[in-house]
Amino acid sequence: MPLRDFDRPRLFVDAALVAGETAALERGQSNYLGNVLRLGAGESILVFNGRDGEWQAAIEGRKRPDRLVIIAQTRPQDRLPDLAYVFAPLKHARLDYMVQKAVEMGASKLQPVLTRFTQVSRVNGERMRANVIEAAEQCGILSLADVAEPVTLEHFLSQRDGGRLLVFCDEAADVANPVQALQSAIAAAGGIDVLIGPEGGFAEEERAIMMRQPKILRLSLGPRVLRADTAGVAALALVQTVLGDWAGPGG
Amino acid sequence: MPLRDFDRPRLFVDAALVAGETAALERGQSNYLGNVLRLGAGESILVFNGRDGEWQAAIEGRKRPDRLVIIAQTRPQDRLPDLAYVFAPLKHARLDYMVQKAVEMGASKLQPVLTRFTQVSRVNGERMRANVIEAAEQCGILSLADVAEPVTLEHFLSQRDGGRLLVFCDEAADVANPVQALQSAIAAAGGIDVLIGPEGGFAEEERAIMMRQPKILRLSLGPRVLRADTAGVAALALVQTVLGDWAGPGG
Repeated sequence: MPLRDFDRPRLFVDAALVAGETAALERGQSNYLGNVLRLGAGESILVFNGRDGEWQAAIEGRKRPDRLVIIAQTRPQDRLPDLAYVFAPLKHARLDYMVQKAVEMGASKLQPVLTRFTQVSRVNGERMRANVIEAAEQCGILSLADVAEPVTLEHFLSQRDGGRLLVFCDEAADVANPVQALQSAIAAAGGIDVLIGPEGGFAEEERAIMMRQPKILRLSLGPRVLRADTAGVAALALVQTVLGDWAGPGG
Repeated sequence: MPLRDFDRPRLFVDAALVAGETAALERGQSNYLGNVLRLGAGESILVFNGRDGEWQAAIEGRKRPDRLVIIAQTRPQDRLPDLAYVFAPLKHARLDYMVQKAVEMGASKLQPVLTRFTQVSRVNGERMRANVIEAAEQCGILSLADVAEPVTLEHFLSQRDGGRLLVFCDEAADVANPVQALQSAIAAAGGIDVLIGPEGGFAEEERAIMMRQPKILRLSLGPRVLRADTAGVAALALVQTVLGDWAGPGG
């Protein structure tokens, strides 16, 4: 992982990023720059919009920061691996946390699925989207993960592309080397869905439907019980290392 | 990871666990069982003390649960891998979270280290210990991680056993397959220290001292910036898989 650029705040903006153009700041952003960071006209920050890479931008505004002038690109746009994080939603703060962590780990799509034992039935998509942006801002991520509408697990399984690999983190699997399991699936990978179930586990009928997916890999995550958000980070670390972009040029 | 036993609360008690003996409940535990879970005399829970395995125990008490009678062992005591999680402390809630996650991931020791760029200088050991117990209770862990006193990173490095492997999660390392890196270190492993630095990174002189440790492995955690708690879970997942107890019997 690269060094963090701590000195320079990084903000998401919706505008196209082109040298010399101006981008308006939202009220919250203006407040953050002016009142929290105490930055003023002429000082520079980093911005990204999920499409045009990362740019240096100069603050403008008389009384407080109210717009940015885009100066020069600092990093080109990148692409995330085709890696969907499919998860039974948690409550409130733990969902915020889970979304932020999935973004840090490089998921390109967040798909909430409602299962028989999911304790949460409504998901605030706006809040999820805000957490995606916050994590991207903090961690220098240039591509924003898509936030999908919640669907039932059965619906998700019935309509997904069967050419994709489904990595199913299975509490009931015997402990077996997850790296070896993932390595055996490399040939099958053309997009990956990593599924983390609810902390109550899956119902038998849900498990049966899952096992009928054409390309499925049951992954064991060690001999101890993990909470769902922990399992998510652990599974994504292993998947990114074996099948994703953590392997590096020699991987 | 095994299925969670959701139906049965699990509590840490300090007493020896022997069939037929009685263990007193602390006020908070009594309140939790009686007022939160609404359990009363005769109902059973699971208990552990970090030494004697897990036991079924029956609640006793007239007005509210005030003691337990130890009935029968449900799981023998296990041992955690010799895996120390060495970390620059974070603030408040994020430290709670980091400690809980390290316990879930199977760390056997938690060692806070103060570095040049650590933003936190005081660590509440009691609170860390409470988080260790809470995570162990929730996740069915039978061995409690030791909570060490905070020391400076320099002190930690100068007094540690040089026969142990130091896995140093290095933001400045080029992206390279962390599993391959860990596999190359297997022969060196006789106890492992996983070091997660502060989000401000290490100072040059700290880095120089680290690089003089006899058995050191710099680990890259992918191309994106990770927050410290995320890096901790990711690193522990990889270390447990390659060198710890996630590999399973065939690993």
